[in-house]
Amino acid sequence: MTRLSEYLLPTEKQPPADAEAISHKLMVRAGLIRQLGAGMWSWLPAGWRVHERTVAIIREEMDAIGAQEMLMPVLQPAEPWRKTGRIGFDELFKLNDRKGSELVLAMTHEEAVTTHVSQIVRSYRDLPLILYHFQVKERDEPRPRAGVLRTREFIMKDSYSFDRDQAGMEERYELHVGAYDRMMQRTGLRFYRVEGDVGMMGGLGAHEYMAPCVAGEDEVALGDGYAANVGVALRSPDVTKDSETLMRGGEALRIEPAIEIGNIFKLGKRYSEPLGASFLDEQGAEQHVWMACYGIGPARIVAAAVEQYADEHGISWPRALAPFAVHLVALGKRGTPERDAADELYATLCDGGVEVLYDDRDLGPGEKFADAELLGCPLRLTVGRRSLESGEIEVQKRRGREQAPPIALRSEPAALFAAVDELWQSLP
Amino acid sequence: MTRLSEYLLPTEKQPPADAEAISHKLMVRAGLIRQLGAGMWSWLPAGWRVHERTVAIIREEMDAIGAQEMLMPVLQPAEPWRKTGRIGFDELFKLNDRKGSELVLAMTHEEAVTTHVSQIVRSYRDLPLILYHFQVKERDEPRPRAGVLRTREFIMKDSYSFDRDQAGMEERYELHVGAYDRMMQRTGLRFYRVEGDVGMMGGLGAHEYMAPCVAGEDEVALGDGYAANVGVALRSPDVTKDSETLMRGGEALRIEPAIEIGNIFKLGKRYSEPLGASFLDEQGAEQHVWMACYGIGPARIVAAAVEQYADEHGISWPRALAPFAVHLVALGKRGTPERDAADELYATLCDGGVEVLYDDRDLGPGEKFADAELLGCPLRLTVGRRSLESGEIEVQKRRGREQAPPIALRSEPAALFAAVDELWQSLP
Repeated sequence: MTRLSEYLLPTEKQPPADAEAISHKLMVRAGLIRQLGAGMWSWLPAGWRVHERTVAIIREEMDAIGAQEMLMPVLQPAEPWRKTGRIGFDELFKLNDRKGSELVLAMTHEEAVTTHVSQIVRSYRDLPLILYHFQVKERDEPRPRAGVLRTREFIMKDSYSFDRDQAGMEERYELHVGAYDRMMQRTGLRFYRVEGDVGMMGGLGAHEYMAPCVAGEDEVALGDGYAANVGVALRSPDVTKDSETLMRGGEALRIEPAIEIGNIFKLGKRYSEPLGASFLDEQGAEQHVWMACYGIGPARIVAAAVEQYADEHGISWPRALAPFAVHLVALGKRGTPERDAADELYATLCDGGVEVLYDDRDLGPGEKFADAELLGCPLRLTVGRRSLESGEIEVQKRRGREQAPPIALRSEPAALFAAVDELWQSLP
Repeated sequence: MTRLSEYLLPTEKQPPADAEAISHKLMVRAGLIRQLGAGMWSWLPAGWRVHERTVAIIREEMDAIGAQEMLMPVLQPAEPWRKTGRIGFDELFKLNDRKGSELVLAMTHEEAVTTHVSQIVRSYRDLPLILYHFQVKERDEPRPRAGVLRTREFIMKDSYSFDRDQAGMEERYELHVGAYDRMMQRTGLRFYRVEGDVGMMGGLGAHEYMAPCVAGEDEVALGDGYAANVGVALRSPDVTKDSETLMRGGEALRIEPAIEIGNIFKLGKRYSEPLGASFLDEQGAEQHVWMACYGIGPARIVAAAVEQYADEHGISWPRALAPFAVHLVALGKRGTPERDAADELYATLCDGGVEVLYDDRDLGPGEKFADAELLGCPLRLTVGRRSLESGEIEVQKRRGREQAPPIALRSEPAALFAAVDELWQSLP
């Protein structure tokens, strides 16, 4: 039950002065996010709905591969970070408690999860295991930028797999590739899975999930059946550089900017050795656990969806991520018959479980339509005086601002829900 | 779909050496939580399920009073904390970023939410407003203790109400009293709502929600129609002290230890004034917003439930919080007909949407029953060789370890679900 007259959706005509990225501009203008400080953002109610829809998709696909959800703390003792050598990372926030003990703020959770596993796992029978959580990460980012694209605090889903041997690790890794592919497909994003940089995590192989868009800080090299991070492509023996063009097997590779929205790494024993995560194998010999880690950022998925589908009027959500399915605009003022008709339609839609944002404010049509196009819900229904005359609810699909055939205003609820559902199914 | 052979539930025979509180001992022994450092805890999968059930109850009751969910960051600029004077609090973690800027880790979110409201709210038309989030809090607690009862990091649901005047604030406060009462009732906890200390938050009045139990650090004074924090009672003109006994209107008050699980405060303009949260009233005059804040700790609710209902065999969850409805114990080894019968029952229950933890491990009955009683799911179903002979599933209700009438092993699914549901409805 969401009435705009009571809902915190502070839309703005102007973007923040420092905003360059489309997602930064539009997410602030649409009232989805607000900045508290450099690289520190709050999600306002409508933005949080989109974030949590993304989280729900990720959770379902993680659970489907047998991953177990838990929660590990952000504030952590420094000691395990010393053992893994990551204590010296510039991005790691360090602080002292009132007794002077050194603490850190986790930027990922390898140290924590491996510490637990080292205490819990004893035998090959306790493996394999996939653990995950959605938890705040903190990074002392030198240049926070682009709204929620590069921040100092963000929520990440990070999962960790624990296996008896390399073959097991590969198997768990492949499970994640499948789960990540499905997540990405379900979000409605355009994306590439590319060969990734091993980077600061260390490891034996990696993939990145990249969403192409102009605000992207990364670059992907794309060819026929080939997709790689440009850095990786440049180091590949198959790829040559011909003046400014990358060539592979006689083909010129396209270069596209993209946002990294997920990454998966084969870690091997990178963390299990320094943190002593071992088990007794079937022969009774002590072995270190084989690990891999898998990250995905809901905030970046949200921002990438804004980047990929926005037009000059605002956001245009893929239906899987939309804050509301329907944006219902009442054109009539309180007390008019057309307003009563809109109120009634709103109540019926709510009863039917349709997620509706109801613009019941005392504003003119121009402002209401502008806010609806800015926020970008997939379907807009409008009820005004004309609806009473024609007996029809005006319908607009947000993507392409396409007028759809009207729905009868006095439909039976079942017919109304069927009409809305049919429209919904037709959306991207 | 949860099979104990694959589930991370590291039960222990012995509690941690330093544990005194029942909830600390049992939550670790039952495999629900693990310590990462002093006052820093992880929730393992079964514990996290209980935590999230608590969160779901809280969320439903918040949404029902029109509160709007959002998310604000943990890492924050120091400046607003300087303005409110809370920067000097010993419990506030402070740190510097790589450029030397001072940051803090939020212990509550008055500074953040009021900063946003000061930028967004302009007019009396924008009020009232109730905003909330579930977010990590950090506190530089000098003496972390008792498992998840007193930690340095924990999740709190904190909501904030914003009103035009004191009468509005009182109205929003009463809405919260109703919502909190319903939350507490739904959890199945025994609780008191008592007059509270205004304490470090400053303000015009407060209530605390207290769960009586021996591990409680607080004390409540209880009489006929009277319940107050002991500190508050001692300062009340109605209460006198007669040697060690508190007297009120001729009645001796009982003193009980209790855990504070929620607290609500009338803040007035305590934060809106220093942070400049104001609006134009109907006469066009600038007014400061009237605020109140409302906290509740899911982790403490979980621990209080353990404290209140545990027996010498382990935890006994109220059904609203249980990690699983049914703990299904298969006594037969893999390949036996009794094991096949248990497998089949498990599949049927899962298909029917019953939340089952299936003990399919190759262990003896003693260990399996001990783990089931330790974990404390409300219903235990047992399938062994005897079940095949008698055609009956053995049923135990965890609370009181009471044997319930058996269920026919070869029931039609509909009859099975009806029998389980009837049992479930009979539970506390």
